Amino acid sequence: MKINSLKERTYEILESLKEDDRTSRLFELFIVFLIFLNVLLLILESIETFAEQHLIFLALFSVFSLFVFSIEYLLRLWSCTVNPSYKNPVFGRLKWALTPYALIDLIVILPFYLLVFFGVDLTGLVILRVFRLFKIIRYSESINTIIRVVKAEKDTLITTYFVLFIVLIVAATMMYQFENAAQPEVFSNIPDAMWWGVITLTTVGYGDIYPVTIGGRFFGAIIALIGIGIFALPAGILASGFSRHQEEFDKKKDEDEVYLCPHCKKEIMKNDLWHKK
Amino acid sequence: MKINSLKERTYEILESLKEDDRTSRLFELFIVFLIFLNVLLLILESIETFAEQHLIFLALFSVFSLFVFSIEYLLRLWSCTVNPSYKNPVFGRLKWALTPYALIDLIVILPFYLLVFFGVDLTGLVILRVFRLFKIIRYSESINTIIRVVKAEKDTLITTYFVLFIVLIVAATMMYQFENAAQPEVFSNIPDAMWWGVITLTTVGYGDIYPVTIGGRFFGAIIALIGIGIFALPAGILASGFSRHQEEFDKKKDEDEVYLCPHCKKEIMKNDLWHKK
Amino acid sequence: MKINSLKERTYEILESLKEDDRTSRLFELFIVFLIFLNVLLLILESIETFAEQHLIFLALFSVFSLFVFSIEYLLRLWSCTVNPSYKNPVFGRLKWALTPYALIDLIVILPFYLLVFFGVDLTGLVILRVFRLFKIIRYSESINTIIRVVKAEKDTLITTYFVLFIVLIVAATMMYQFENAAQPEVFSNIPDAMWWGVITLTTVGYGDIYPVTIGGRFFGAIIALIGIGIFALPAGILASGFSRHQEEFDKKKDEDEVYLCPHCKKEIMKNDLWHKK
Amino acid sequence: MKINSLKERTYEILESLKEDDRTSRLFELFIVFLIFLNVLLLILESIETFAEQHLIFLALFSVFSLFVFSIEYLLRLWSCTVNPSYKNPVFGRLKWALTPYALIDLIVILPFYLLVFFGVDLTGLVILRVFRLFKIIRYSESINTIIRVVKAEKDTLITTYFVLFIVLIVAATMMYQFENAAQPEVFSNIPDAMWWGVITLTTVGYGDIYPVTIGGRFFGAIIALIGIGIFALPAGILASGFSRHQEEFDKKKDEDEVYLCPHCKKEIMKNDLWHKK
Repeated sequence: MKINSLKERTYEILESLKEDDRTSRLFELFIVFLIFLNVLLLILESIETFAEQHLIFLALFSVFSLFVFSIEYLLRLWSCTVNPSYKNPVFGRLKWALTPYALIDLIVILPFYLLVFFGVDLTGLVILRVFRLFKIIRYSESINTIIRVVKAEKDTLITTYFVLFIVLIVAATMMYQFENAAQPEVFSNIPDAMWWGVITLTTVGYGDIYPVTIGGRFFGAIIALIGIGIFALPAGILASGFSRHQEEFDKKKDEDEVYLCPHCKKEIMKNDLWHKK
Repeated sequence: MKINSLKERTYEILESLKEDDRTSRLFELFIVFLIFLNVLLLILESIETFAEQHLIFLALFSVFSLFVFSIEYLLRLWSCTVNPSYKNPVFGRLKWALTPYALIDLIVILPFYLLVFFGVDLTGLVILRVFRLFKIIRYSESINTIIRVVKAEKDTLITTYFVLFIVLIVAATMMYQFENAAQPEVFSNIPDAMWWGVITLTTVGYGDIYPVTIGGRFFGAIIALIGIGIFALPAGILASGFSRHQEEFDKKKDEDEVYLCPHCKKEIMKNDLWHKK
Repeated sequence: MKINSLKERTYEILESLKEDDRTSRLFELFIVFLIFLNVLLLILESIETFAEQHLIFLALFSVFSLFVFSIEYLLRLWSCTVNPSYKNPVFGRLKWALTPYALIDLIVILPFYLLVFFGVDLTGLVILRVFRLFKIIRYSESINTIIRVVKAEKDTLITTYFVLFIVLIVAATMMYQFENAAQPEVFSNIPDAMWWGVITLTTVGYGDIYPVTIGGRFFGAIIALIGIGIFALPAGILASGFSRHQEEFDKKKDEDEVYLCPHCKKEIMKNDLWHKK
Repeated sequence: MKINSLKERTYEILESLKEDDRTSRLFELFIVFLIFLNVLLLILESIETFAEQHLIFLALFSVFSLFVFSIEYLLRLWSCTVNPSYKNPVFGRLKWALTPYALIDLIVILPFYLLVFFGVDLTGLVILRVFRLFKIIRYSESINTIIRVVKAEKDTLITTYFVLFIVLIVAATMMYQFENAAQPEVFSNIPDAMWWGVITLTTVGYGDIYPVTIGGRFFGAIIALIGIGIFALPAGILASGFSRHQEEFDKKKDEDEVYLCPHCKKEIMKNDLWHKK
């Protein structure tokens, strides 16, 4: 592939098209580093004393990050037309802007501009700031693997979560019956009992809510013993799906291995080797 | 299959015999929606303020649901004779009424008629209202899958639960010995210690009951370390059974695939393809 | 095998040698029922009000049970010489008396005779009464399966428990360092910290002991995240060992299937079928 | 390999080169025993009353242990030149001293000499004393197995821990938003909420920190249900990796089996058997 313009080179850097492109790797590292720094400061900012002491630094850093992320977004928006899928200057760019990655990038920078230009203050919505972390997904093979595994095991997961839901409702309704009279403040309604159900069936067991009557304890013990098997299913399904995916990936990597022909000294992909008839 | 009467058409709709029957799908969706609404309102009704505010709506909705479920039950009872298994108008219908699904449908509507005609008030038995949720089983492939897996792994599950039971009794009796003197109010008898045993071995650990003596803690630590392995068995067995079942299902689906013969253009099931000798 | 004497018939009944022997099955059922009744009463006896109300019944039942178990022991001791392994009237019986099953049977009845003949009162040692439950092992295929799986996976289990032990000691020692100053009453010494370690790494988490300092929480979080993987190993190993064992068992059962030869109408074991060369 | 000097014999004993060398086995047993005794006393020393009563014995035993470990270190340092990798008397020994095992051995004895010769008191750093436990790694096949499994599954583990980290940060930030107003003392900042996240997602659930608002409980329930599947991945990955490793090991052991040729009566490794063409 020949690079014959600034736009194509920009696209190449932003999308890490070449594996040994130093500029591309440096850019990626810088963005990932900036994302992690943003998340770290989001965490530290919640500590009151820290926030008070570094008020100005935090504000400046925030503006700086949003400036960089804005530049990145504009560059991506400008150069995306290099990709034949988003060829059209207007509709192609719009199509690109609606891809999940582009939307995440937009949501990260949007609140700042809403505040500056329209006075809409969304700083209270921390969720919008956590969104900066989602920018990392683009660069993380790990998360993409997990997403693929979850997609592949979707049917089974939906099945088990549906059954979990049924078990949870039955357990909560029954437990509410057993415990409401004895602990009207704790098991005051079925949603409270559902909180008990989730915390028990996931084996977290905070200890803020638990049965005290004989009937409740007996029923709770049965639910714990039976239900845990069912609640362990999603974990088991994901783990086996993950291991199967890993095997496929290893196999594919193995097939992609490159050999050198001992005669002509040229590279051969393992898959391209011919079996002599 | 030809449909030549209203009864046969009704049966066809109720049992979803044809996959692309819109009336059938709409009916199914309506019943499933009604079931979920019933369960949702059962949960919300337990919140005192909600129950007081919507007293009349809840009563009306309950009567409406029971009316629909009654109609559904009567239609099923009427049309079941279409099925050759329940051919006889009296005994066939009786045989149908004793199938698990029919019994669930009956239990859902019965309390209302007991109250209206005999004055037997069962509204206190919330379990009877949770039964409405069980109507969903008929429509849920997921639950049927789980039931089949549990049936297939029945022997192994009984084995492990029996061993769990032995471990539990030994652990509880010993712990009662260790802790009764130090905490007579908490470990006041062996059933209390069995509650400790279940909550510890399932790793829920509410924190309402735990050993405080050196001997009790030492023994409790050993039970936790050893017992957890055994208690994790049912989960492992179900997960592997589930994954095996899934494979079989996938294989079967694969075998059921339909091909078109390139010569005669007729449909062929993969299983029916002949290997040329 | 011909039965030509009372002793051989007794041995046959006690050891359930014939599968369709009704006397044998009734005897087995009676003993298993008596064992469970003993355990049930042991549990109920710990409830003070129950023990006081049924004082005489409990004492009579205890004497009756020990009487039956004594008769059973003597019959087994008398008839064991039928088995060629224990042929010798004196040394053969002694050899039998030292087998695990015979020792369990002896420990069950011994305390009673120690009390009656030597005045040694061991009624305080509840562990001796729980031993009655161990008599069930003889009749339980389940427990024998678990024991075989544990034996087969012995090496791997020892490996993981050893590593667990190392992780536990390192975690406890470090946590003691972090928390001793802040909570001298809770983390007062390393054994206390080891109790924290076991309860955390098994994910029970009672909440009676947990870190409160920043360092302790940070270290505790790391231990929880890393250690849980290691602590989940025994469960995973047992589960996979169990499933493998099951497969072998199924295969063996399959191989033991009996066929009828279509020519001579005689029984053939699947394993004995010959492949024609 | 011939042993023709004291140094070579020393090296042979220290490194257990011969399997049936009694001196070597005795030396190994003595060192392992001394390590465990050191760890046991480290644990007991933290119990104040024990430490006060056995002050002199503990001090003497500590000096004795360090003396033995020092001798061991010096012998290893002296004899390591027998190994061709560390042949050079100066640089070879330096190279050896920088191997992980040698560094552990050094860290164990160093604090004592720092105190005696330079007056640097590191007795407060218990971590340095726990290091004595790490000396055991050299002798433990178990730990080496675990290390190898972790290395083999490194990529997958990094993947999952990275995803866990993302889930944890998102969960903590959101929960901080939900609960900060209702429980400003408990969820006082995001690091506190991260502690909640770890303790919940690992299902430990101490009960020192948990949501109380409706929004927080709803979000917490979702995180518990979804997140636990992801958090169970490392355990599943390690368990399957372990079982695969075990199989490979069993296979290798099988291949290493030794046969006797029926003709020449000489030993043959299974792997060396030739297939006749």
